[in-house]
Parts: sequence; C-alpha cells; structure tokens
Amino acid sequence: MHKIAVGILGASGYAGRELCGLVSRHPGMELAFAAANGQRGQRARFGAREITFVAPDDVQLDAAEMVFSALPHGASAEWVGAARTSGAKVIDLSSDFRPGNNAAAAPYGLTEIMRDAIAGAELIANPGCYPTAVLIGLAPLLARGLVRPGATINVNAASGVTGAGFAPKQELMFAEVAEDFRAYAPGNAHRHLAEMNALVRELGGDNDILFTPHLLPVARGILATITVPVTESIAEPGALWRQFYAGEPFIEVTDELPSLRDVVHRNVVRLSVHAAANVRQPTLVVIAAIDNLLKGAAGQAVQNANLLLGLDERVGLPS
Amino acid sequence: MHKIAVGILGASGYAGRELCGLVSRHPGMELAFAAANGQRGQRARFGAREITFVAPDDVQLDAAEMVFSALPHGASAEWVGAARTSGAKVIDLSSDFRPGNNAAAAPYGLTEIMRDAIAGAELIANPGCYPTAVLIGLAPLLARGLVRPGATINVNAASGVTGAGFAPKQELMFAEVAEDFRAYAPGNAHRHLAEMNALVRELGGDNDILFTPHLLPVARGILATITVPVTESIAEPGALWRQFYAGEPFIEVTDELPSLRDVVHRNVVRLSVHAAANVRQPTLVVIAAIDNLLKGAAGQAVQNANLLLGLDERVGLPS
Amino acid sequence: MHKIAVGILGASGYAGRELCGLVSRHPGMELAFAAANGQRGQRARFGAREITFVAPDDVQLDAAEMVFSALPHGASAEWVGAARTSGAKVIDLSSDFRPGNNAAAAPYGLTEIMRDAIAGAELIANPGCYPTAVLIGLAPLLARGLVRPGATINVNAASGVTGAGFAPKQELMFAEVAEDFRAYAPGNAHRHLAEMNALVRELGGDNDILFTPHLLPVARGILATITVPVTESIAEPGALWRQFYAGEPFIEVTDELPSLRDVVHRNVVRLSVHAAANVRQPTLVVIAAIDNLLKGAAGQAVQNANLLLGLDERVGLPS
Amino acid sequence: MHKIAVGILGASGYAGRELCGLVSRHPGMELAFAAANGQRGQRARFGAREITFVAPDDVQLDAAEMVFSALPHGASAEWVGAARTSGAKVIDLSSDFRPGNNAAAAPYGLTEIMRDAIAGAELIANPGCYPTAVLIGLAPLLARGLVRPGATINVNAASGVTGAGFAPKQELMFAEVAEDFRAYAPGNAHRHLAEMNALVRELGGDNDILFTPHLLPVARGILATITVPVTESIAEPGALWRQFYAGEPFIEVTDELPSLRDVVHRNVVRLSVHAAANVRQPTLVVIAAIDNLLKGAAGQAVQNANLLLGLDERVGLPS
Repeated sequence: MHKIAVGILGASGYAGRELCGLVSRHPGMELAFAAANGQRGQRARFGAREITFVAPDDVQLDAAEMVFSALPHGASAEWVGAARTSGAKVIDLSSDFRPGNNAAAAPYGLTEIMRDAIAGAELIANPGCYPTAVLIGLAPLLARGLVRPGATINVNAASGVTGAGFAPKQELMFAEVAEDFRAYAPGNAHRHLAEMNALVRELGGDNDILFTPHLLPVARGILATITVPVTESIAEPGALWRQFYAGEPFIEVTDELPSLRDVVHRNVVRLSVHAAANVRQPTLVVIAAIDNLLKGAAGQAVQNANLLLGLDERVGLPS
Repeated sequence: MHKIAVGILGASGYAGRELCGLVSRHPGMELAFAAANGQRGQRARFGAREITFVAPDDVQLDAAEMVFSALPHGASAEWVGAARTSGAKVIDLSSDFRPGNNAAAAPYGLTEIMRDAIAGAELIANPGCYPTAVLIGLAPLLARGLVRPGATINVNAASGVTGAGFAPKQELMFAEVAEDFRAYAPGNAHRHLAEMNALVRELGGDNDILFTPHLLPVARGILATITVPVTESIAEPGALWRQFYAGEPFIEVTDELPSLRDVVHRNVVRLSVHAAANVRQPTLVVIAAIDNLLKGAAGQAVQNANLLLGLDERVGLPS
Repeated sequence: MHKIAVGILGASGYAGRELCGLVSRHPGMELAFAAANGQRGQRARFGAREITFVAPDDVQLDAAEMVFSALPHGASAEWVGAARTSGAKVIDLSSDFRPGNNAAAAPYGLTEIMRDAIAGAELIANPGCYPTAVLIGLAPLLARGLVRPGATINVNAASGVTGAGFAPKQELMFAEVAEDFRAYAPGNAHRHLAEMNALVRELGGDNDILFTPHLLPVARGILATITVPVTESIAEPGALWRQFYAGEPFIEVTDELPSLRDVVHRNVVRLSVHAAANVRQPTLVVIAAIDNLLKGAAGQAVQNANLLLGLDERVGLPS
Repeated sequence: MHKIAVGILGASGYAGRELCGLVSRHPGMELAFAAANGQRGQRARFGAREITFVAPDDVQLDAAEMVFSALPHGASAEWVGAARTSGAKVIDLSSDFRPGNNAAAAPYGLTEIMRDAIAGAELIANPGCYPTAVLIGLAPLLARGLVRPGATINVNAASGVTGAGFAPKQELMFAEVAEDFRAYAPGNAHRHLAEMNALVRELGGDNDILFTPHLLPVARGILATITVPVTESIAEPGALWRQFYAGEPFIEVTDELPSLRDVVHRNVVRLSVHAAANVRQPTLVVIAAIDNLLKGAAGQAVQNANLLLGLDERVGLPS
C-alpha cells in the first residue's frame, strides 16, 4: 500500500504531539517531517517511534502530500498557503480558515455533518474543540428545525488543561489548577463563539449561543452541557439523535450520562439527551463529551484526512 | 462569657464533622455531644480537640441549648422535633423543613436575605449547598424586579465530592473520580430544584430554574454559573450586587472571576457578574463560588446560630 | 487461527477488568466466561465489546482451555484446583501459589527471568505487582552475584489506588486520597515481603529486603526505589541492565528517570540505575516503574499465557 | 503591644507568599515591606489584607527590625548582608548560610534541636524543607548514640510541587504532573544532602545519608521515609521520640502513620517510628510528614523569629 507522506507544522504543542502519535501509527501514512520552531532539535517518543522536531525553515514542504498545521491562530494561514502552493492537501487545525473568523473560509471539517464538502476539498478548516462537541450535539435539532427560533442556546462547557496549550503559564501550574475550578471568558467573550454561531446559522438555526467555558483540574477532555429551547415537546429525545447519527462510527448516543473517562484517548463524541421537567417552555438538555485532543483536534483532523484521501474514515483512529 | 451548650446530630458525615470543628473552636459554644449512629464510639480529631462520637440513643437532648442536625433528609425531622420538645433551639441542615419540600416549612436560613426572620426563630431550615450559591447570586436581581418575567433561569453548577456524602460508594472512589467530570440528575431531576424555585418565587420572581449539577474531581467547593434573562441592559452589573450586599462580611463581589481556591475553607459566597454580548435579549451571567461544607452547610449553620443567639454573626467563622 | 477459549474468575475487580479488556482484544483468544460473584448480571464495556459478568456457580469450567483467576488471596486456590481438574491451564493472579506463601508453590511467572519454567507449565503463579517491579530491578545484580552478601536491600515503593482493590472503602474515596500521600504496612509488614525474599534467595542473593509501600493519589502505576549495597563500584551501571535485558520487548532501561506517565497502559518495566555518591560503601539506586494492572498483574498474566500457549509473547499486549 | 516591623525579601515565591500571610496575621508583627523583583507592583491577597509587592531597590531596609529573606540560593547572601548592616535581625530561608554549603555558616534554625543557639542570634539559617523532616526524625537516635556507626541512613522522600518553586516550568504544569510520580536527583545529587550530612555529624552521627527525593502530584507536603540501622533492638521505639520531644508544641509522635493531610497548613512535624521485622540487623523506620511551606520554610522561620525576639514560639503559627 502506498503510504501518504505527511508533514506536521506546529508539532510540539499538545495537538501537534497527538498528530505525531496518530500519524506514526497510521497504516496509510508515513511522517515526512514534524516541524516545531521553539523545540527544534528536541526529540519526543510516540510509542515505539522517536521523532526529532525540525525547524520550520528547514522543512521541504513539497516532501509532503498532506500537511497538518497545528500552528497558532494567526500564524497558520501563511504556512497553509505555502503548503498549498507546494501542492500538498492541508488540514488546518487553527481557526484561520474557519467560518466566523475569516472572510474566505475553507470547508469546515465537522466530519459527520460536512462529509460531502470535505471529500472533494484540498484545504479543510478543522473545527475547534468546543465547537465540535457543541455542534455535534445540536445538529440533529437544527437539521429538523426543532430549535425555537430566536431563542438563546445556553452552552456551559468545561475543558481539561491541555486545551489551554503546551507553553508553561503560571495559571496552568499543577499547584494552581489542582483542587480548583473556574470559568473564563464569560459574557460570550471566547473566540470560539463566532465559529459556533456561524455554523448554527449554516445549519438553519436562527439562534445565538451564550457560551461560558470553564477550566477543569484534569489533563484531557471536554464536557459540554447544552440547553436548547425547542418548538415542541419531544417524548423520547434520544431517538432523534440515534436516528440522525445511525451508522456513524465516532458518535455514541447513550442513555447513561457521558463522562470524560468514557471518551479520553478515543476519537468519539459521546452524548445523551434529556427533556427538562418543570419549565414552561419545552427544553432539551444535551450533554456531549469529547477528548479535546482527539475528536476535538488531531483525531478529527486525521478523520478528515482519511476522508479527503479516499481512505476508510476509521483508519488509524482509536474508537 | 457563658458558653452555649451545643449538640450535634449526624456528626460523622462531612457536614457534621465540619460542624464539630467549628463548634470546638467557637469562643461562645461548647460541645455537649456529637452523635453519630454508624460511627458510635469512634474518635475524630478537630485541631487540638478530640471528639468521641456517641450513639444517638445515649444522648441527653436537654443537655444542649442549641442543636445542629446534620442527619439525612427524611431522618432529621423526628430528631428535630425531639430536640425542640426538650427545649433546644435547632438548626436543621437537612431538607426536611425547607420550602419546596415540606408543607410546614421553617424559616429559611439564607442569612443575608432572611436575617429578620432568622433572628427571632427557634428552628431554622439551613439552605442546601447549591441553593445557597444560586440564591445569593440571584437575590439582587429578584429584589429589583429585573429578571425577565416568565424566563427560564439556567443554572449549571459543579460540586466537589464531599457534596456527595461521607459513606463509601464505588463511583466516589479516587480511581473513578480523578481525571473525570460528569453531569448528574439532568433535566431538572435534582432534589434542590423545588427549594430554589420556591425561593425564587418568595423573592418575587416569576421564573423557573433549569438546573444541571456536575461532579468535579476536587474535594470541596461549588461553582454555579447562572444565566439570567433581564428586563433591560445593565451597563455595570457588578454595581448592583455591590450595593445590595454592602457591608456583608461573607459576600464578596469581585471583578476577577471567582474560583474554588478563593473560597474553600472560608464561609463566603464570592461572585462576579457579566453582561452577555452577542445575544438578542439582555442577559447576565452570574458566577458564584462557595465552600459546600462551610457557606453551603456548616458555616452558614453557625452563622445562623450566631444570629439566633444574639451573637456577632462572624464569631467562630473563617472568612 | 484457532482461538483459545479463555475463562476469567474474579473478573470484576481492577485486575479482572483489565484481563477482560486484554482478552477481548487478543487476536488469539476468545472469552468463554467472565465470572464475578458480587457483580453477577452486571455489564461492563471493554472497547467495542460488552461483557456480562456471570455467577461463578453458573460457569462451565471445562468450556475454557485457559483460565485466569483474579480471585482474592485465599479464595483462589480452590477454584484453581477445580479449573485444573477440568483440564484448563491456569494463570493464578492471587498469591495462593506464589513462593514464600505456600509450601507447594507453582512456577513463578516473572516472565523475563523464569521463561523456561513457564513455557512447559500448566499452572503459573503470576507475580505480585510490587515484586514484579522490584525483582526485575534486582535480577541482573543477583544473577552476577554483585549484591553485598548479608546486606539489607532497601525498597521504597509507591502505588496508585487501583492496587488497593475495587471495593469501596472509606480511605480510598476521592476526598480522602486527593492531595494526600502516606506509607502503609511499615516495618516489613506487607504480605509481598515473603514473595520478594523467596525470589531474592532463589536468584542467589543472601539478602533481606526492607520494604515500605506508600499510597499515591493516582489511579494506576507503581514506582519502586531500590537501594542496593554492591560488592564493588560499577562505573556505568546501566550497561549491566541493558546487557541482561537485551532483546526483551517489555523491559526498558533508560538514562532518564522513569515515571508513571511513561508506563501506564503499557505492559513494561521501565527502569534506570544510578551509582550513589557520597556514601562509604558502593551502592546502587535502581528506580523501576510499572503499570500495576498490566505488567504488575493482567498484562504479565497474558504474557505468561502467550508463552505457555506457544504464542509470540507480545501478542495482544500494549507496549 | 509594640509590633515588630518586618520586611520580606523574595516575597512572591511560594515560601515568600506564605511568609506574607503569616506576618500579616501575626499579632506581634506588622509588615514593613514585601519585595519581589519579578512581580513588582502586583498585588496579592492574604486573608483580609492585600499586599502590593515592591521592587527590592525601592525598599528602605532600615524600616524593618526583622527581615525574612526568601530569595533564591546564591542571591540571598548579599541582601542578607545589607539587611544586617542596616541593623535588622535576619532569618534567611535560602541555603546561603546553612552548614554544608558555606564556610561561615550561621546558627541553624532547626528550632527544637538548636533552640539555645537561636535565641541569642541575629542571623539564622532557616533549614531546608527536606532536612527539617529528616533531622527532626533522626535527632533522638543521634542524641542517644543509637545509630549504628558507619551505617548508611536511607532516606526516601516525596514532595508536593510547591517545593519546586513558583516560576512556570513545563514539567510542573498540571497536565504533566497529574497522575504522575517520579524520582529526581538520584544517587545523592540533591543539594540538600550536604546540609543533612553536616547536621548528622554535628548531632554526633558517624553516618552518611543516601537521599532520593520524588515529586508528588499534590500541591503541598513532604513525607520522608527514613531507614536507620541501630545499635540494638528497641522494643517500643515511639517512646524514645515521645520522651525526646515531650512538651514540644510542634512535634507530634503518633501511633498511626502520618500523612500529608494531617500536616498541611500546620507548622508541625508529625512522625511515627517502626521496628523492622525480618532483617538481620536491628533497623528502625521513621516516617515524618511536614508542610513544606510551613514547618519546612515560612512557619519554621516565624517560629525562629518568635524565639529570637523573645516571644512565645507559638505566636502566629497554625498548629
């Protein structure tokens, strides 16, 4: 089997490292380069394989047929352009080409929802971690037109610290995070808001999201608790999600409540749906859990790459 | 100074133990007995003082002028009745006499809001941990009539594991809780809902709460994230809370976001308020943090006892 | 390929569950039954496969060609006997047939050291978790006769809480273990001592171990810090271990210090060796890390089963 | 009561912050300045009091009668000299004046052991965190001449991450430390070794320490497990420690095993002693726990300051 030569830009952050591991173990890919400016020359081990990070300037972009960019927002677009010019297909994990952030957005890599647009693309904007959990949770309602028009969709979400990046910061030190919990970016100040709102509209919703993220004392995982006013009472709400996602290998609709332990180190969205009692307007509560570094970043990126390369979507991904 | 003889029922759970520690160190109280059925005869250390738990049946209730009951819901009412009959004033930490749970509710011990009713009472229903955080957060809006009539108030809250009780349970073992996060009682199934809704109405609101609690991998603390549709835009929302709680020793209105580390081992509610951008209807986000065992249970109980005994409310409480 | 029918006794504890997962994914095995008395009828998920625990009394022992017993110490021997009588080969994870605990010990399944005895056996006593880390660390010195005769070998080790069992216990609740660390069984009172001392002698050492275990606030993993007086200064001590374990797929001798993160969810012993400065007698410090549930229990059990069945030792094991 | 004017140098690290809190609440002290080069101008809250860190160059050293230096090793000596010149008494928390590190060591502030030398001094070298736990554990044996001459004393110790400093470092991030455990500075490479060995000799021992420190996934606390070959069997070893430390308010000799939860946020050493069974030479195991920031740093510093100022040693210290 021909192995696709894959390059990784921004390889030393948490998402980049996860990509290095996935690509190293992927039976249809081989690693052409793993570039990381700050950690150039340093080695990292991924299972049996050891990788040495190279300087971005030393990279031969045209050695790669497929490039993943896990560069920071703002810095990614230029490198993505260069990789496209050199002929590579690109999955960009930054927000630079995502809807809501960019006039010229690329196809949005929310795989289960956007599969047709992804399959034929050469550049994919891989979704943010929070938007992945939230939009997979909302899509069945939006597709059926069941969200109450004009209503605010309330999203509370909590993320493990790997979502806040690899670089050392005072507030992410163990002694600061352990035994703590806090909100951040309150009042709709998080940069993922525009991305989520843009997609809600693209999926047919006339709704605003009110999003409050929180920082959890765990390494990995996101849990999103989504409250959605609906147009009518839905007796057995899980059935709608089960039907919508029937046959999807990476979506798990469950009766029991999803938790981080159920999803870490797996490329899945696991969710449950609950009708709210004791409120005047029919309202659903959707609870969705993902591994922020897999389905929320590197895993979904490889899923998109598989799709775009004509491979089985599941290849090389832990479910 | 005459020391009040204090008895504690249900002394061996987490709230009961916190009470034992607070009463032992309280300059105006002395411990008459600490009863605990399951742990009778066992000792526990609280700072310099060691306490031996006695069997409830061996307790002389009339040896106590003040009784705290931290017995389980359902089991507390009978013991509270006996303590009242023997002449003691009672603070009941169970839900047995709280509004929303009982036809004949006792005065509700949300100290800062209900001070006048508490001062003259002989039996106080001490608030639940979640309701304390939520209602202190909402009271200024309700008092001013600023909550949009009929609107749902969305409450997402997360609690440390001491909120789930002292008895060993599989799902509370370290190996199950560490690195995890999950919701429970979704769809408004938590038993604190009725208590919160009853108080919202008592404080003048025509609103339902939609409440989703979560279990955090921390020992102590609750963070409540409360989304409130309001009748008008409020330019500087924190000012309303600062004015409402001016002079309160146990309420902290802050600009920075409250976190569990700011409140554990302290008898305070710490909160911040934020206007939501990018939503059509004016909406506020209130974030409130407490120590579930202090302001959420034993600390507020002692605060109420101080008030009811004519002492300075702050005596014996860590702020 | 013929799949070996495998039965698991004591399947619902932490080691038993790990065995269920390994056997379910093992390409040469299929699960005949997973018996668990206390959890009979309950289901557990292992990756894609769901297993229902059956009552031991409902098990057809002769349906299994290979039986793993993860029953408690004392309770295992009788079931092991029954499984042997029914014709199955048995790997016993309890201490019932280990040296130091039993007049009639079975071959000891410390795979890398005892491979010849294991290959032809029908019943293997799988080593304890602590002994695995300690003995793999000591074996090269003992084999070369380099441990100072008569000297005490000091072993300090720390284990995650899954080493203390699955059953709920007060002292293993999250709120008790988090942010704590403590020793237990001090003064050589741990039941693994006899097993370690017996093997030290079997490997030629005239030495006693002084063993102090500790409980860590982590779910999985053991780190053993072993101080060994040696007969002579050893300039580059790691070379001895590298040579002794050359070609072993599950032993990693490293220059950097091993840590729990390097070994959890992997069936390896990872170790480093250091000559002690500033002491009068030549002394080495060996530091060895394992996953207590894999190389310390279920992983080594499958490794032994592979060996005993004539399969590649590595099949079905995460390295 | 005259309040002593106290200055703190290096106030923004973990030990410095702990000092700020202790001095702020100390009834006999008032804070003259809290200097911190890197965080100049930043504020920190200690209970009810808020402190603004000033630049060291803006400090009037002679405004302080007592100076605590929590500056880094190497940087402290010069500032200590300047404070002494300006007339202040000084407690230096760095290693710059400790025995084993410096030709001209100052009196060593291991309070319970060195009380006479401390009381009359003007400069005290406050002990390191590990040496405090280890030497308080060993002192009774050394004083009675019971340590086997020439024998190695094996010390394994584990510390929470605040022992590794306040500055952000990759290896101290939450996502790196949680669920991990590792040794560091193996083979007697830790800088506290010389300090411990110097004191062992000063206390009459002809012994070398073999010291292996470890990093724990907790914020605070040190547990030291000390193995000591002794000259004779000691039937009830705890009695020796109880007698030696009789009346000491900050030393707790217990029958149960000490743990970090017993000592954090308290200025105590808590220890137990155990005779080792099944070894040929009589050997004791001493297990000692401290809060590394209190008895291991700032608490002992205030204890020494109290002594040196003629105050009750216990004033302002949480026991």
